[in-house]
Amino acid sequence: MKLIVTDDYDDMSRIASHHVLGYLTQNRRVNLAITAGRTPVKLYEDLISAIGGYDCYSHVHYYNFDEVAFKGQSREGVTISNLRKLFLSPAKIKETNIHKLTDDNFLDFDRQLQQDGGLDLMLMGLGSDGHFCGNIPGLTRFHHSVVKLPLEGNIAEFIALTEMNGDMQSVPDHYVTMGPMSVMAAKNLLLIVSGENKAWALAQVIEGEVTEQIPASVLKLHPSLLIIADSASAAQLSAESLQRYVQSPV
Amino acid sequence: MKLIVTDDYDDMSRIASHHVLGYLTQNRRVNLAITAGRTPVKLYEDLISAIGGYDCYSHVHYYNFDEVAFKGQSREGVTISNLRKLFLSPAKIKETNIHKLTDDNFLDFDRQLQQDGGLDLMLMGLGSDGHFCGNIPGLTRFHHSVVKLPLEGNIAEFIALTEMNGDMQSVPDHYVTMGPMSVMAAKNLLLIVSGENKAWALAQVIEGEVTEQIPASVLKLHPSLLIIADSASAAQLSAESLQRYVQSPV
Amino acid sequence: MKLIVTDDYDDMSRIASHHVLGYLTQNRRVNLAITAGRTPVKLYEDLISAIGGYDCYSHVHYYNFDEVAFKGQSREGVTISNLRKLFLSPAKIKETNIHKLTDDNFLDFDRQLQQDGGLDLMLMGLGSDGHFCGNIPGLTRFHHSVVKLPLEGNIAEFIALTEMNGDMQSVPDHYVTMGPMSVMAAKNLLLIVSGENKAWALAQVIEGEVTEQIPASVLKLHPSLLIIADSASAAQLSAESLQRYVQSPV
Amino acid sequence: MKLIVTDDYDDMSRIASHHVLGYLTQNRRVNLAITAGRTPVKLYEDLISAIGGYDCYSHVHYYNFDEVAFKGQSREGVTISNLRKLFLSPAKIKETNIHKLTDDNFLDFDRQLQQDGGLDLMLMGLGSDGHFCGNIPGLTRFHHSVVKLPLEGNIAEFIALTEMNGDMQSVPDHYVTMGPMSVMAAKNLLLIVSGENKAWALAQVIEGEVTEQIPASVLKLHPSLLIIADSASAAQLSAESLQRYVQSPV
Repeated sequence: MKLIVTDDYDDMSRIASHHVLGYLTQNRRVNLAITAGRTPVKLYEDLISAIGGYDCYSHVHYYNFDEVAFKGQSREGVTISNLRKLFLSPAKIKETNIHKLTDDNFLDFDRQLQQDGGLDLMLMGLGSDGHFCGNIPGLTRFHHSVVKLPLEGNIAEFIALTEMNGDMQSVPDHYVTMGPMSVMAAKNLLLIVSGENKAWALAQVIEGEVTEQIPASVLKLHPSLLIIADSASAAQLSAESLQRYVQSPV
Repeated sequence: MKLIVTDDYDDMSRIASHHVLGYLTQNRRVNLAITAGRTPVKLYEDLISAIGGYDCYSHVHYYNFDEVAFKGQSREGVTISNLRKLFLSPAKIKETNIHKLTDDNFLDFDRQLQQDGGLDLMLMGLGSDGHFCGNIPGLTRFHHSVVKLPLEGNIAEFIALTEMNGDMQSVPDHYVTMGPMSVMAAKNLLLIVSGENKAWALAQVIEGEVTEQIPASVLKLHPSLLIIADSASAAQLSAESLQRYVQSPV
Repeated sequence: MKLIVTDDYDDMSRIASHHVLGYLTQNRRVNLAITAGRTPVKLYEDLISAIGGYDCYSHVHYYNFDEVAFKGQSREGVTISNLRKLFLSPAKIKETNIHKLTDDNFLDFDRQLQQDGGLDLMLMGLGSDGHFCGNIPGLTRFHHSVVKLPLEGNIAEFIALTEMNGDMQSVPDHYVTMGPMSVMAAKNLLLIVSGENKAWALAQVIEGEVTEQIPASVLKLHPSLLIIADSASAAQLSAESLQRYVQSPV
Repeated sequence: MKLIVTDDYDDMSRIASHHVLGYLTQNRRVNLAITAGRTPVKLYEDLISAIGGYDCYSHVHYYNFDEVAFKGQSREGVTISNLRKLFLSPAKIKETNIHKLTDDNFLDFDRQLQQDGGLDLMLMGLGSDGHFCGNIPGLTRFHHSVVKLPLEGNIAEFIALTEMNGDMQSVPDHYVTMGPMSVMAAKNLLLIVSGENKAWALAQVIEGEVTEQIPASVLKLHPSLLIIADSASAAQLSAESLQRYVQSPV
């Protein structure tokens, strides 16, 4: 685990975009799983600006790592739709380079990823409750690979409100997500964290025990985890953590 | 996670020795943490026979991953002594290539490993109770890095019996071990398993939940874990596990 | 460039087999281009003995790097036929894991290799005239990728004699080979050398200038070249070369 | 060999900076050899702006790959002085992360690089005569490792004029440079090219034979060479080269 702490959200976004750009400019096929949500908004803007329409990045393939379908509708799911808006469409990523996780293929997704050569990088955010991807306290088990989980209660309402104009009829009774087993199989992990409302969760992830109650606590067991956090989200970290994990010369 | 199932102990040892030989013949510095115990005896014999005294392997560095000191004695600890007998001495490994974990340096061991470039491979066995290295049910927490733990009860007696001629006076009240955090930071893991008395533990590791009650269950979250098991130890694995994890063409 | 010097041919074969076994036991797809000829005979015997019929190596794919067709006959070419006899058949390699370079596909071979993920290792021998693969003094240019070259004169007669029962009618007027550009694109190179009749060529390769007159002299420009040579073939190397390139602790 | 062709110099600089940023944000020690000259000016500006004073990049170590001393003066050489002006000083790189090649240490430089873990990336420009680093037509031999070469004639006058205020008294009779053997030993190469005066040289490098008369022609034999060129410098490339080498989906 390595940690970069930046002054603010803009710097977090900028430095995270540098890390991703390193993957985009490699001279071989690269497989990236990327996150929707609010945290990566500026990171994607930086990437889109950096890429500037060049198709020299056409050897890069994109995957979503969770999905909520619109019940009874044939349109694409919530996550992939958001990824299109935030990044894939403005960055002009070709359809052949977009690989969708859906209700239909989730049981075969790990095998497909392996056939594609595995994920080179997973870009993820951190929930204030310690969730990552669709791995949520109370539902997630660390041994889950790609999995279908029930969608209900507050989360179902939140999805209806934020993604479906409040229409509970469109909310399905389940969602799919890469579980901890599948996420940890990626070669490299990048966790981006911003804002004081994430400070408790980040401290738990870095300093706390590994527990399914805080699903992201498992990520620190990965041999190549980079966390880029702004100072607000790093506010509850101990001096010892900062000294131990912040990038420094070897 | 990949799994190779062999007919018997000899084949397990032979194929594991092939995997280790791949590291020994790389053309750069290689850092290996290796295990004592009964499981690797034949593997080490195969390696010693293969190496045959050539010092072309002198760029390979060896580390022990746990240690029990002899209380009140200045001699080397139990693990490093066993490693010398099993492998380091007959293989004529130079003293400069042997890096000892001890009571004195365990707090600095992770930093030293990082400075050395990190472990390229950890070779480990599996306990019938699901332990690995010194990570024991009831004591181990997944967030442990290199750690000092109490040595007492049955285990203390077992150590006295097997390693100290029954002399309980020589058994210290603690031991040191790389914890799950430190082990999972290695680039690659190799778990060797043999015998029907390991069959329950292996099934738990591969098919069960990730729980500190079966410490080795965490290993399946590593992106590069290879398990080489003989058929006796693989006897309780489901057909689904065998199909999913046994090495096969991509 | 790293160099391992062994006492004799048997040790050269054994240690080279260790290096190849490291690739065979990796837990991902591995692509190997392998050589026919006399030098690797014992290496293949060691590999076949080591593999022992286990199909845990079924993720390993094999390629030949040059080929001479039998003119006017529909049978397989000289190189792949020899590779089958020496290794592929006794090792029970599946047909799906054998990828043949032929007169028909040589123009597309580099693209195919790239699509397959590139070669992880090329195993090659050294000619007493400094040739490697089908890269022969007087014909080879360093900028050649996979190429068709004329087959004539002594070499045509030699092929007729050794591979075609002296029947010059079966010798085609050309052959195909991976040229230096294609060989150097592999991730790792292993050159095995045995016998005093190779001593002059090996000294040229390691100590001489880089010249198309000694095609293998280009190999030392590869960032990951391992040479395993027996003492007879290393007899003309200077003490300085031995000190500089022989494997040693970092 | 992969090729990215950009519209103009600014885009070349920007995309090259992305590639370098990928190295800067890796979570382990990274060793970079970097180039002085006019071509990288904007690239360094982009990097300095991107880095923005963060010392999260403090695990990155910098090396110069050639040097001309000021004769009879104790000041630092021409190359390292230029690198300080262009990048090292404004980027606030710590002195402990700067590793200087000089007249005094050039014979030990390869060994030191190997001890440091080898170069992860060499950033180089291309001369209109086909030179790279200090590897100049008429002087360079492909088998050169780090080497001292005579400095005379037009080049000596050019150095005096551009770097020493026209003072020929300060020009030494030699310079030191990493030769082709040492450069090719780096894990990855990045060649940046800009301007129509480089168009002939670039076409020779990509399409021509491998010859010491055009030293950079050897670079195409490296298994991981990325060329980023603006359209002016790529103007003489054939459609076939563009199709074959320009980054494209696998």
